[in-house]
Amino acid sequence: MKKRILLPDDERITQWYNVMPDIPNGILPPLNPANNEPLTPDVMAQIFPMGLLEQEMSVDRQIDIPEEVLDIWSIWRPSPLIRANFLEQKLGTKARIYYKYEGVSPSGSHKTNSAVAQAYYNKREGVKRLATETGAGQWGSALSFATHKFGLECKVYMVRVSFDQKPYRKSMINTYGATIVASPSPDTPTGREYLERDPNSPGSLGIAISEALEDASSREDTKYALGSVLNHVCIHQSVIGLEAKKQLAMVGEKADVVIGCCGGGSNFAGLAATFVPDKLNGQDIRLIGVEPASCPSLTKGIYAYDFGDVSARTPLLYMYTLGHDFMPPGIHAGGLRYHGMSPIISALLREKIIEARSAHQLECFDAAVLFAQTEGIIPAPESSHAIRAAIDEAMREPDKPQTILFNLSGHGLLDLASYDKFFAGALQDFAYPEEAVEEAKKTLPKV
Amino acid sequence: MKKRILLPDDERITQWYNVMPDIPNGILPPLNPANNEPLTPDVMAQIFPMGLLEQEMSVDRQIDIPEEVLDIWSIWRPSPLIRANFLEQKLGTKARIYYKYEGVSPSGSHKTNSAVAQAYYNKREGVKRLATETGAGQWGSALSFATHKFGLECKVYMVRVSFDQKPYRKSMINTYGATIVASPSPDTPTGREYLERDPNSPGSLGIAISEALEDASSREDTKYALGSVLNHVCIHQSVIGLEAKKQLAMVGEKADVVIGCCGGGSNFAGLAATFVPDKLNGQDIRLIGVEPASCPSLTKGIYAYDFGDVSARTPLLYMYTLGHDFMPPGIHAGGLRYHGMSPIISALLREKIIEARSAHQLECFDAAVLFAQTEGIIPAPESSHAIRAAIDEAMREPDKPQTILFNLSGHGLLDLASYDKFFAGALQDFAYPEEAVEEAKKTLPKV
Repeated sequence: MKKRILLPDDERITQWYNVMPDIPNGILPPLNPANNEPLTPDVMAQIFPMGLLEQEMSVDRQIDIPEEVLDIWSIWRPSPLIRANFLEQKLGTKARIYYKYEGVSPSGSHKTNSAVAQAYYNKREGVKRLATETGAGQWGSALSFATHKFGLECKVYMVRVSFDQKPYRKSMINTYGATIVASPSPDTPTGREYLERDPNSPGSLGIAISEALEDASSREDTKYALGSVLNHVCIHQSVIGLEAKKQLAMVGEKADVVIGCCGGGSNFAGLAATFVPDKLNGQDIRLIGVEPASCPSLTKGIYAYDFGDVSARTPLLYMYTLGHDFMPPGIHAGGLRYHGMSPIISALLREKIIEARSAHQLECFDAAVLFAQTEGIIPAPESSHAIRAAIDEAMREPDKPQTILFNLSGHGLLDLASYDKFFAGALQDFAYPEEAVEEAKKTLPKV
Repeated sequence: MKKRILLPDDERITQWYNVMPDIPNGILPPLNPANNEPLTPDVMAQIFPMGLLEQEMSVDRQIDIPEEVLDIWSIWRPSPLIRANFLEQKLGTKARIYYKYEGVSPSGSHKTNSAVAQAYYNKREGVKRLATETGAGQWGSALSFATHKFGLECKVYMVRVSFDQKPYRKSMINTYGATIVASPSPDTPTGREYLERDPNSPGSLGIAISEALEDASSREDTKYALGSVLNHVCIHQSVIGLEAKKQLAMVGEKADVVIGCCGGGSNFAGLAATFVPDKLNGQDIRLIGVEPASCPSLTKGIYAYDFGDVSARTPLLYMYTLGHDFMPPGIHAGGLRYHGMSPIISALLREKIIEARSAHQLECFDAAVLFAQTEGIIPAPESSHAIRAAIDEAMREPDKPQTILFNLSGHGLLDLASYDKFFAGALQDFAYPEEAVEEAKKTLPKV
């Protein structure tokens, strides 16, 4: 048995895969909330570079990965595919479980894949500085690393409550040479407005997005960067699945079940979307997205146009949503606390090409601890949702010799305080209130 | 250029290298402090299993690595050898810098190599439980992982000041299912004695060692484990150098300079000792150990018999020492705060086969930040000593196309608070007081 399947450098992925043209019935375009018309590139070009906008709207299946991106990726890519044989033994299952491990990137998660690509395209078009928001901190640290590599400045607006709870993320962002400020901050009109109302405001992702957007709009030299949800981010992450398929083939395997956790959707899309052509060609393969039961956009949400942020300032995206002002409870998988879902993943669910399920926080931590004690790696709370589902799949029919592949999107070394709380019995599960859907419907923009 | 040199599984190391028989004039044996006679195995057998004691006294150059150890090692071994091309570019040097990266192990440092081996030999001889101490936390977390894999219980006595400063190490140890207590603890006679004197005692490595030894001596089912200094630990770590040599050969390189940081000496021995036969055979190669300027056992210490612990309870080891009651200042490379040095490394220095130098804390953090910003990995403060020396070597003659190899013994993700202090200007350098050597001489045991 091979424990770690390492892709040789000469087999590395040099083209991204874009699932857009392979989605039956396609996806609806983003709308300008001012007039409900499809968004034109010139509006978007104020905040994103053209290189990324072209990808956002691309219908090409293959997109060349720039040499400069491959060069920096070489620090950790190709990432390993690892057989979870110790977990299998502990479970007593005949399933063969493999995980693609993205925690090997400098900032410890898959986010670095897109961060490097986004920094590159901004740099190429003369941008000097990027502004972004970060919730749990993975995206902020990934972009800090990437911008520094390309000689760009970077300013990160980090939700105040995370800023205080996860001081090591702030340290990492500082180490990579970026500027970080707790949001709401005194540095933007929105930040000042919220601080005036409440100097101790815990902040929210919505406020942080607004601050980063305002920052980017107010300066000629600055653009905005988003770490998930959008098509171009999902495209960048396709390297995960493309590598994994080659690695499975190296050991003569084909995936029967493919699993990823879902927040904004980019890590699941990165892995699962690359299997969509196989599924459309008749291969018997299940693609399962796993979201928190407390923030269940895919399993309980409404499929409709909605804002991407709480402050209702972004373009309208057609997606599964819990309503843009839904405030998810404070679970420790901070990266999955998002009211919406990538339009790509949403459309794949609508077409029944993927499945969705939800898992509660405590059962995910149970899975994470079992994984750490068998496989050694302490998983990010986000990634533990994928582990939970992989274990459940392996144990539904333990004698079935199926091949399960999941994405271990990041390590949990900067989330160890949440493990402490779990062991101390200080965490709880949160049910999503069924009546909230009806409330959410009232908040949707009229289109 | 190849960024990461990955050793194929069929090239993996299956025999450790023991440098003992290759040390000219050998090393002096450990003594029993009760009678100043060489220690007999039966005395040592009370706290260590025979499998490890055989290695401790072995004069075999090659020692088979048990299949069970290789099996667990497969989670992260062979570890990558990485070309630091981004650092080279930034420096503008013609030196080719390679680093062996041991931070890929589950607990994030090279310590896991020996932890797995030690857990195995204890398990094989029916031991049910291990007791150990940990200062900075790397060894405690490594042993917690390893013991759990072999179904052993583990109790870690962690120096109180580190226990409070590095809460994530405690979380990691809990996650791996071990028991951890701050030392001094109410669980042992020594712990209670110190607590009675001062309920807020910050503890010390000496107290923690005494507590772990008392724990192991007081229970039939328990033995003691040490994470550095001793010969068997250095032997286990030889896998680092053996892999690195093969990996360098894969890209047609031969090391001109080999560098590692030195605390107890096991990570430097693991890398550098494997090059000793080449040096003895006339190869022009320099082996450089780097220690903190504030705790300079190799560069300022006395070569003599001394106790391994502050409380003067261990056997006497012949080594470079600053005196067993030397209390190093609170630098953030906690794993290098040790008054003595591995007898193997000490003898290699005496024979002028290796060189030693020291580096100050602030220049090491400078090197660490430069490394993080170019190569992406945030280094452990301990490992930053090796980076500092590698940079200095590369820049001494920047036009010289030499090959420099250093050991990046661990990542610094659980040490990010020390980076914060560095950025805030809250760290300082500590000189070793020259007069301290004369004081230390008075404390040495009469042999």
